Amino acid sequence: MPRNAIYAQSGGVTAVINASACAIIETARKNSGQIGKVYAGRNGIVGILREDLIDTSEESSESIARLRTTPAGAFGSCRYKLKSMQESHAAYQRLIDVFAAHDVGYFFYNGGGDSADTCLKIARISEQMGYPVQAIHVPKTVDNDLPITDNSPGFGSVAKYIATSVLEASLDVASMSLTSTKVFILEVMGRHSGWIAAAGGMASSQELPIPLVILFPEIAFDRESFVKRVQDAVTCHGQVSIIVSEGIADKDGRFLTDQGRSDAFGHQQLGGVAPTIASIVMQDTGFKYHWAVADYLQRSARHIASRTDVEQAYAVGESAVLMALAGENSVMPAIVRTSSHPYAWEIGKAELEEVANIEKKLPRTFVDKSGFGITQACRDYIAPLMEGEDCPAFQNGIPHYVRLKNKSVPRKLGTDFEV
Amino acid sequence: MPRNAIYAQSGGVTAVINASACAIIETARKNSGQIGKVYAGRNGIVGILREDLIDTSEESSESIARLRTTPAGAFGSCRYKLKSMQESHAAYQRLIDVFAAHDVGYFFYNGGGDSADTCLKIARISEQMGYPVQAIHVPKTVDNDLPITDNSPGFGSVAKYIATSVLEASLDVASMSLTSTKVFILEVMGRHSGWIAAAGGMASSQELPIPLVILFPEIAFDRESFVKRVQDAVTCHGQVSIIVSEGIADKDGRFLTDQGRSDAFGHQQLGGVAPTIASIVMQDTGFKYHWAVADYLQRSARHIASRTDVEQAYAVGESAVLMALAGENSVMPAIVRTSSHPYAWEIGKAELEEVANIEKKLPRTFVDKSGFGITQACRDYIAPLMEGEDCPAFQNGIPHYVRLKNKSVPRKLGTDFEV
Repeated sequence: MPRNAIYAQSGGVTAVINASACAIIETARKNSGQIGKVYAGRNGIVGILREDLIDTSEESSESIARLRTTPAGAFGSCRYKLKSMQESHAAYQRLIDVFAAHDVGYFFYNGGGDSADTCLKIARISEQMGYPVQAIHVPKTVDNDLPITDNSPGFGSVAKYIATSVLEASLDVASMSLTSTKVFILEVMGRHSGWIAAAGGMASSQELPIPLVILFPEIAFDRESFVKRVQDAVTCHGQVSIIVSEGIADKDGRFLTDQGRSDAFGHQQLGGVAPTIASIVMQDTGFKYHWAVADYLQRSARHIASRTDVEQAYAVGESAVLMALAGENSVMPAIVRTSSHPYAWEIGKAELEEVANIEKKLPRTFVDKSGFGITQACRDYIAPLMEGEDCPAFQNGIPHYVRLKNKSVPRKLGTDFEV
Repeated sequence: MPRNAIYAQSGGVTAVINASACAIIETARKNSGQIGKVYAGRNGIVGILREDLIDTSEESSESIARLRTTPAGAFGSCRYKLKSMQESHAAYQRLIDVFAAHDVGYFFYNGGGDSADTCLKIARISEQMGYPVQAIHVPKTVDNDLPITDNSPGFGSVAKYIATSVLEASLDVASMSLTSTKVFILEVMGRHSGWIAAAGGMASSQELPIPLVILFPEIAFDRESFVKRVQDAVTCHGQVSIIVSEGIADKDGRFLTDQGRSDAFGHQQLGGVAPTIASIVMQDTGFKYHWAVADYLQRSARHIASRTDVEQAYAVGESAVLMALAGENSVMPAIVRTSSHPYAWEIGKAELEEVANIEKKLPRTFVDKSGFGITQACRDYIAPLMEGEDCPAFQNGIPHYVRLKNKSVPRKLGTDFEV
């Protein structure tokens, strides 16, 4: 008898995480001799702990196919981190109980570094408890900070969105700068790594150069040199666009804006650095400015997803199932760049021990000497990840996204679990 | 001998104002027997006053064609308002001097209500001074607040961008709301009219309903009823997306956020109402929130322009030239909705006396009883304006926009003019 699978989405969602979900479900359906039903945790691992599962077999193949072009997490995600085996033992035990109750032999966890760690722990406890589950991690993060894999699905699309937005807003400023706005500020995501901020640099090209100042979280913010850079740009070019990572901090590591709140992973909740930078620009230069905060728009912008990103998100989902069928456990499909010119990639395999809890930072060689721009090496890395378009269908002027039925699987355990 | 034309862009630019420029230049070129060169004011009317003109005949037909898919103002725009004939007499005199020096018989002014007023004054002074210039206003404003015309080019595309962004971000929140963000706030443009805020309502459809709260500038902000609405939405649906116009004010007409600065038109410079609303949400509900400020991204987002909007922007430019050739003066091509179901439109003619300095507000019948949503009448009005896609070409992962050479026309006047 084929055993069932559980799929769960974890952490902040992306424009293409559902493309991975699509691939997992479609590939499992193609291999129905070896995999039974694919259940999904409603709101991620919280749903598994609560035995609140979704039966994806209730969805038509057309609906599942449309996941490929629908952003965000179709089954719900969550910010919920399991602690160590000792601290969260009951939770791990519960997961195995739920797996056993629903004859689950495959666990596909779609997330970033935190969920890779959870996935690894589930593989281990399943061994210890003598209940065999193959736990495969499926990479996803707009922050692009997972190690081993050349890049993470989700990043290419946010890069394309940010580069396009900076280009468009900069043309706007170019139109207005003589009598009005000279400085445009865009706040982008990236707590500790400047990958998304770096993508803003891709707005400028040889054919259409744009004066930019990028503020990376890896580079300590120095007000004086920043202001000088802005003044120089406006003097030379009449305008400047500033891309600022939400996570920038001064040399003592203090975030420029700190709302003093934390999310469930214990990360500080950031936001609002754009107005802080705007007030510095106003005070120190007097230039007229405008600022924007992209926030969720950047990571949900499926309407301008990168085709490369969509294909890779699909490929890691498909490979996750194929790896499971090949008997793998505690692994993650990783994107391997086999050639840079022309760009070529394939799916390799990473051991979760080498993935969990490691943050890949932007290499210092990707930031230019000034600390305010990107190097050619950085451009060469990011460019192919943004390449290609993959427009969703539109209906009534907006993208035609799917909302699944998300029917519940009847519960089998008689116990509740407090999450 | 055919007389020359001057074209100028005015005020805040849009995703499709260059489509109007494209149409004017292409249509003039097709009628070279009657219209000589098309000059453009560099940075709008400021360039004309300074006799700083661009010779568009130096641009290839391929470059001009690419204007159709390039956002912002290719020749530069400005925020500069001519005052009354008495106060700004020297400026009007100067404009006529520049026209005369360059044998200009046609003036095409592409802007909103303020520029319609300027255009009208130019037509009048040219008569008074005995120098014949046909002054045609070409409508443009994301704010959609021009009268007579059914809608203004620029609005349909910003509507499509905002509706799409609200849809995408709301799917993101739906994924996360159980354990994380429940309230998403998007600040949109619109000083005095809620057209853009209303467009946010188009994110919700029968097939994929989204809980929304819209804060219109026409409706006095009342904290208590707002908070109740947010709480009710989260109770019923687990989430809510708030679309807030930058121009919302309380019952005494005080803007919620007032940076205390003014632009060159004497309008107050707004921005930053999203964090104000966020702090109200935090204080009065405790719900976790995220906020975004679209700012220039919304009006420059050519990558997701409405095809209807692009076609109408082109049509008003083309018609402006044809009206000039037909001997018209002091007029504006207006979009006339000839049928709602199915949507059909044609270009009519508006007298500038009836256009200048009149702001078309969102009709109260477009806002529902609660004051926080849009009616079916509003949906019927906006829907066709967002209809259709018109993707620009992409190169290296981002839209391939054109930057013109913008070669200067040799000056003929020996005098400078202080702007």
